[in-house]
Amino acid sequence: MEKIAIFPGSFDPFTIGHESIVMRALPLFDKIIVMLGLNHSKKYFFPIEARQQMIEDLFHDEPKIKVETHNGLTIDFCKKHGATYILRGLRTAADFEYERAIAQVNKKMHPAIETVFLLTMPEHTPVNSSVVRDILLHRGDASLFLPLKLDIKNYLRYENE
Amino acid sequence: MEKIAIFPGSFDPFTIGHESIVMRALPLFDKIIVMLGLNHSKKYFFPIEARQQMIEDLFHDEPKIKVETHNGLTIDFCKKHGATYILRGLRTAADFEYERAIAQVNKKMHPAIETVFLLTMPEHTPVNSSVVRDILLHRGDASLFLPLKLDIKNYLRYENE
Amino acid sequence: MEKIAIFPGSFDPFTIGHESIVMRALPLFDKIIVMLGLNHSKKYFFPIEARQQMIEDLFHDEPKIKVETHNGLTIDFCKKHGATYILRGLRTAADFEYERAIAQVNKKMHPAIETVFLLTMPEHTPVNSSVVRDILLHRGDASLFLPLKLDIKNYLRYENE
Amino acid sequence: MEKIAIFPGSFDPFTIGHESIVMRALPLFDKIIVMLGLNHSKKYFFPIEARQQMIEDLFHDEPKIKVETHNGLTIDFCKKHGATYILRGLRTAADFEYERAIAQVNKKMHPAIETVFLLTMPEHTPVNSSVVRDILLHRGDASLFLPLKLDIKNYLRYENE
Amino acid sequence: MEKIAIFPGSFDPFTIGHESIVMRALPLFDKIIVMLGLNHSKKYFFPIEARQQMIEDLFHDEPKIKVETHNGLTIDFCKKHGATYILRGLRTAADFEYERAIAQVNKKMHPAIETVFLLTMPEHTPVNSSVVRDILLHRGDASLFLPLKLDIKNYLRYENE
Amino acid sequence: MEKIAIFPGSFDPFTIGHESIVMRALPLFDKIIVMLGLNHSKKYFFPIEARQQMIEDLFHDEPKIKVETHNGLTIDFCKKHGATYILRGLRTAADFEYERAIAQVNKKMHPAIETVFLLTMPEHTPVNSSVVRDILLHRGDASLFLPLKLDIKNYLRYENE
Repeated sequence: MEKIAIFPGSFDPFTIGHESIVMRALPLFDKIIVMLGLNHSKKYFFPIEARQQMIEDLFHDEPKIKVETHNGLTIDFCKKHGATYILRGLRTAADFEYERAIAQVNKKMHPAIETVFLLTMPEHTPVNSSVVRDILLHRGDASLFLPLKLDIKNYLRYENE
Repeated sequence: MEKIAIFPGSFDPFTIGHESIVMRALPLFDKIIVMLGLNHSKKYFFPIEARQQMIEDLFHDEPKIKVETHNGLTIDFCKKHGATYILRGLRTAADFEYERAIAQVNKKMHPAIETVFLLTMPEHTPVNSSVVRDILLHRGDASLFLPLKLDIKNYLRYENE
Repeated sequence: MEKIAIFPGSFDPFTIGHESIVMRALPLFDKIIVMLGLNHSKKYFFPIEARQQMIEDLFHDEPKIKVETHNGLTIDFCKKHGATYILRGLRTAADFEYERAIAQVNKKMHPAIETVFLLTMPEHTPVNSSVVRDILLHRGDASLFLPLKLDIKNYLRYENE
Repeated sequence: MEKIAIFPGSFDPFTIGHESIVMRALPLFDKIIVMLGLNHSKKYFFPIEARQQMIEDLFHDEPKIKVETHNGLTIDFCKKHGATYILRGLRTAADFEYERAIAQVNKKMHPAIETVFLLTMPEHTPVNSSVVRDILLHRGDASLFLPLKLDIKNYLRYENE
Repeated sequence: MEKIAIFPGSFDPFTIGHESIVMRALPLFDKIIVMLGLNHSKKYFFPIEARQQMIEDLFHDEPKIKVETHNGLTIDFCKKHGATYILRGLRTAADFEYERAIAQVNKKMHPAIETVFLLTMPEHTPVNSSVVRDILLHRGDASLFLPLKLDIKNYLRYENE
Repeated sequence: MEKIAIFPGSFDPFTIGHESIVMRALPLFDKIIVMLGLNHSKKYFFPIEARQQMIEDLFHDEPKIKVETHNGLTIDFCKKHGATYILRGLRTAADFEYERAIAQVNKKMHPAIETVFLLTMPEHTPVNSSVVRDILLHRGDASLFLPLKLDIKNYLRYENE
């Protein structure tokens, strides 16, 4: 059976930490689908098109990695794609408690699903999308916290606020 | 002296975890008043009438349990009802730190008040109102996380968004 | 039905934090039995006789509070005394996780048992028996962390190391 | 070299906990600049003028303490004022994880910066600005959680909601 | 390349939680080696032979699962067996912080290693080997916390204290 | 008044994380005294002479840093040396809760004392003395986790177990 993992998130933007998790998990799976969650009631810094483009550009040379948008429950996306794994990165104890609740609810609703966790690298522990947005909002240089291959300026042209 | 406990919350909606805490605490008190907090600046999934109805229906046969709405400080509600206990459920370490701050502030302002904590059952640990709302929002089946006696569809007709 | 709570611990020694939990929980129960756990493989600072004497002296005027020693599972002690509550104080998030595991295991083994938690007062949060022992070991003054009514010197004469 | 520390926050309002951190850190530094962060997308309880006035009044007699507003990254403010220290108070484990991420990102972007943490006093642990706002919103008495020298009514006249 | 995972621990004894982690991880790997760590300075409840027998009996019908003892660093065991994954279960936030330190040190010393975490099931969260030992020590019934297929009495005959 | 800080610990051994804390705190103080705590009931990996030598060698060129051994309460050492600051590094939330209790007890017993916390660098977060000892015990290479200037083999000759 093909081992398919979903890597769900809003990725506003996709950080160096996200990239590291996906790349390190890649040998474990046959396919990883980055699931860009849509939430119409939330306000994003990067529009959905920019976020999708950013991740597609980043993994352009990795045929095993796909990007898709989804509006709905993560477990419904898993069922639709025949995925039995959800991939998540863990940074802190606070992360852990939040992730545990979501993973246990997903498993309760769809017992065939396993959430698989990798740790962020120590140097990526303080990095999250909110920190990066805050730097970009104040015109700071966030490149230390973004994938090396991405030039964030290419996606900021999409910026709508 | 009558032992009266307040069980405060926004209960949007009242989950299987809330039900378990109230029922397990019942032998300890002479009366438990579920205090449905009103906060006009917050947007709820279930309108206040639906939430109140849901809890009243659930505890219809328990004369020791009452439901009341309140707009104000919890300690003022306690004073008004002669309650000297606040009842709360604890699920996670993150919960604990949040609850501790509130309980210690309440005690500082009204020293006669004790906050009494029970643990959620292990199988209810991942359940909270926000998880349930998210499932309902995406038309999923949340019945696993709601009181067995409640048919949530009866209250969703109240849904205003 | 009589509401009996067990307050289990090794109490080496009984601190100002323990005293506060028992006194504040007293109105909630008909009887509180301080269960002094025996563990022959552990080395204590105060011998069992001194610890028992200390707690008996402290609660001499409280007919609702008893002290007993016990070698065995806490739930067996509860069954023997007809107690359906275990009383515990919570100080920190680390405490919480430890206490949660024990309480959930006790409930799994003996479903009629509820563990009831009160919070320590903010000023008692850093106090625990290990801190007090460390001060006493180095001949420091630990009176700030001990019940006001106890003169610890009366029990140190029992000291055997 | 002059030891300058920045104490950043939104201080909505400045609590007894904030005051304690600044006063206890004072001997360690030559100057402490309270940096009142501006965030135009956030809604505050006290307008910026009231918050600035409150802190200036409080530290009127402390020539080593200044108050300034800032709209931008904290590290840019540090560079502008030649500050090499950021001062923060720690209350809980949840605080700690949040503060650690911010401090480590600041250090990554500006390696000369050290964030120095003091602990809140045990009795101030449950106090934060959000708790105080909640009390004021419901016309409760928050004076126990505010600096003794400040009469909050003088600043509530600025209240705009 | 064969995907081999090590599941290291002292397993004194192997609990229902350990069993669940190994069985749920099994589809993800080609082989899982349960690594029974030896530590001559530690005192165990079950002798090493009993612990090894217990795990072998439990997984007798699973050809993909092996059991081996090891005295040394986990990463040396990984290298010897060509394993590039370490499998661990996560129960609580306290667990998480402990596991994170070990996993990050292992990765620093041997960058090809990934530690993969699964969550314990909610009902197994309070279960750990120490709780089980405590019950057995006091002649209690620990069967609720042990693999269904194992009769612990068969291994207690090995008990040496 | 001279700003003297105590950096207390058992330092078995002194790690790259300890070195980083002391060096980054150095500009803040006039003198830092590394206080090597003696505890005759504890068994150490490195004898006290080796640990003292290691720290003295490391800071040989830093006249502001001293090393002293002490058997007793940390606050008594502070009083003896006229120190009003205790310096500590914080790595994790678990660390934080432990350190907070000690710091608050110290302040209660000796109010003039402030404990000042710096964060470990992200890459040092998983490093602690126990991890290093475990590597050395199994003849592994721990140099990644030890101060660059120290050759641990020079101190292992002191090793007595």
